[in-house]
Amino acid sequence: MSDIEDELTAGYRRFRAEHWPTAHAEYEALATKGQKPHTLIVACSDSRADPALIFDAKPGELFVVRNVANLVPPYEPDGKLHGVSAALEFGVKVLGVKRIVVMGHAHCGGVNAMINGAPDIVADFVGPWIAQGTPVVQHVAETVAHDQLERAAEEAIVRLSIRNLRTFPWIAEREARGDLKLSGLHFGISEGALTVMTDKPRFEPLA
Amino acid sequence: MSDIEDELTAGYRRFRAEHWPTAHAEYEALATKGQKPHTLIVACSDSRADPALIFDAKPGELFVVRNVANLVPPYEPDGKLHGVSAALEFGVKVLGVKRIVVMGHAHCGGVNAMINGAPDIVADFVGPWIAQGTPVVQHVAETVAHDQLERAAEEAIVRLSIRNLRTFPWIAEREARGDLKLSGLHFGISEGALTVMTDKPRFEPLA
Amino acid sequence: MSDIEDELTAGYRRFRAEHWPTAHAEYEALATKGQKPHTLIVACSDSRADPALIFDAKPGELFVVRNVANLVPPYEPDGKLHGVSAALEFGVKVLGVKRIVVMGHAHCGGVNAMINGAPDIVADFVGPWIAQGTPVVQHVAETVAHDQLERAAEEAIVRLSIRNLRTFPWIAEREARGDLKLSGLHFGISEGALTVMTDKPRFEPLA
Amino acid sequence: MSDIEDELTAGYRRFRAEHWPTAHAEYEALATKGQKPHTLIVACSDSRADPALIFDAKPGELFVVRNVANLVPPYEPDGKLHGVSAALEFGVKVLGVKRIVVMGHAHCGGVNAMINGAPDIVADFVGPWIAQGTPVVQHVAETVAHDQLERAAEEAIVRLSIRNLRTFPWIAEREARGDLKLSGLHFGISEGALTVMTDKPRFEPLA
Repeated sequence: MSDIEDELTAGYRRFRAEHWPTAHAEYEALATKGQKPHTLIVACSDSRADPALIFDAKPGELFVVRNVANLVPPYEPDGKLHGVSAALEFGVKVLGVKRIVVMGHAHCGGVNAMINGAPDIVADFVGPWIAQGTPVVQHVAETVAHDQLERAAEEAIVRLSIRNLRTFPWIAEREARGDLKLSGLHFGISEGALTVMTDKPRFEPLA
Repeated sequence: MSDIEDELTAGYRRFRAEHWPTAHAEYEALATKGQKPHTLIVACSDSRADPALIFDAKPGELFVVRNVANLVPPYEPDGKLHGVSAALEFGVKVLGVKRIVVMGHAHCGGVNAMINGAPDIVADFVGPWIAQGTPVVQHVAETVAHDQLERAAEEAIVRLSIRNLRTFPWIAEREARGDLKLSGLHFGISEGALTVMTDKPRFEPLA
Repeated sequence: MSDIEDELTAGYRRFRAEHWPTAHAEYEALATKGQKPHTLIVACSDSRADPALIFDAKPGELFVVRNVANLVPPYEPDGKLHGVSAALEFGVKVLGVKRIVVMGHAHCGGVNAMINGAPDIVADFVGPWIAQGTPVVQHVAETVAHDQLERAAEEAIVRLSIRNLRTFPWIAEREARGDLKLSGLHFGISEGALTVMTDKPRFEPLA
Repeated sequence: MSDIEDELTAGYRRFRAEHWPTAHAEYEALATKGQKPHTLIVACSDSRADPALIFDAKPGELFVVRNVANLVPPYEPDGKLHGVSAALEFGVKVLGVKRIVVMGHAHCGGVNAMINGAPDIVADFVGPWIAQGTPVVQHVAETVAHDQLERAAEEAIVRLSIRNLRTFPWIAEREARGDLKLSGLHFGISEGALTVMTDKPRFEPLA
């Protein structure tokens, strides 16, 4: 494993030594029967907000999409590349997940770039990508107290992604029929606590 | 947590009860100091191949991009939306990861659709998305034994993504300088084992 | 004037009979010397919120852009048609206006369509046009009390247009130098009163 | 009203002091019942040719679109931004106006730029915008006497906009049924006089 360095190798060895002995039957069953995850989760790429850790998930539970700032673009079936939409289509139509979660998190670099502008060095791709959320975040910046801006903006991006999910007709229909639930969550890194989007202006602690 | 159902709630409660007591100092430090992940990993959304589990990763270790079939599109700075490229740009330029891993896996539904065609119900988004890999997979279908096709095609997609990573000038330059390593891996679900891309035609077991 | 009906003809006759005798010298001077308006105003096409009436303006005072929902798109110099941007460029660079006002108004049909969706019969052009403001308005709909939604959304669109004005480098530079002022206003039709955008979340009465 | 300077404030105060006492019932009724303007007018942004003044219009009478050189682009329902078309769609289909007027005017800076070229400083947006009318104006420049060029070109742009209006199927149909009238006008600033487009080569005085 000459080209893979220590941390990954060490982690993989722990997986083999500590988890595989008890998990192998589960993995074998999943290989044979196929996956049937209950939840599709759209989360940020951030290393501090990993869905598998926060939900103590077992293999087979979560179908995971991760990108910068947990953004879901609106439905746009124009024949071009849409990575998030492809994952949604596969998770909803083929796998039949019963729940879609969008999970934002504290100290999000992508949301920060929506507030303060993307650094020049990431103007090529991060710039256009975060521009999806900038109009909403800038509105938040003008209408909430400064000391609440970061978190309110992170919540606003979760709201935006949830709204965009509902522009996919096959998501909206399943939600209307009660076959699919959409939930917005925010993970506070320093408190290790989830808050949840409700019909109130701000997210509320998870009961 | 009325709108989030049982499995997630239960997992989150385990996280709070079993992991948070020992992990909280680490999360607090990450919230304060910011993230400094050593590895950016591009993996599949598949619920059976979760990087955090396979590498027994702690929070802060892995910057994770997940999409259907762990695809990296080629460099195309045209001002349009490129979610994977945005995450690469952020991970390499802002976070300074020292390694990028592309991890494929067995029984990949995306690669299967490249071999057999995407079902009609997922023609809108999965269709165009997997078309990125179809030419390579079709070549594999003509040149390897049928009983090895699935795995060989999964490996071929990892190879394609690694090649595409090198079309990003700021990835190629860092790799040339020795500041960034690119690695291709494949996770065999039923064996729980990683194989690695080398200069041989087929991936090899990890030592 | 066979093809122009009564109301317009009657109005023009009043203009000739009642206003021209006192206004002709001013019009003649404006024809000779050219226009030098102090303000460029972006207002809605709505017949109930006419800038010339609300500011009791004389000819030569206001350079006026009117469209559905007083929207200013962001700076996008791509060589394509941008009617609002063309008017801004002409007003700022050629005429040297010293102020740009964006004026929203109560009961705005365009903002209403952002809240409730555009009727199908206007999906071809009103649909895409108002989509510029929909993300912000939908966020407002989730975060303000229902009985304040309409006005808060109208204010949010003025905010959006003001932010977009600042994406034009030659507007931002002039504002930074103090040579150009940007102001956001809202006209309450039933009260005949203007409110003004400040650094508070909601617009405030004009002193 | 710290951020709005003298002329506007003064005008608004005159509106409040001199017009509101007699106009308030009308505004209140318009707020309650909604607008029902009889005419949609496409006019130039020029400060010297304000439809509300020239037609001595009351609130509620005119649905107004104003841009550089009173241009109407042709029908192009491609899902992109078309501000003038959006206003036409709203005015014709939702409000049911019974008349569309295109009003040009003397000394039009936009038409002048079609004749002499747009100054370099306005090449980004005015350039492409006026290019819509340039072919017609260049034809006029070759076929009318030089001392009539400016006015003839201004008339030609009104004609062009009227022709383009007829490319909208829902305008052409309503005009064919007699439910909608299209009129072209030109305002001579120094004479304060309107001329009207007829089937003659040049516009004629309004009776």
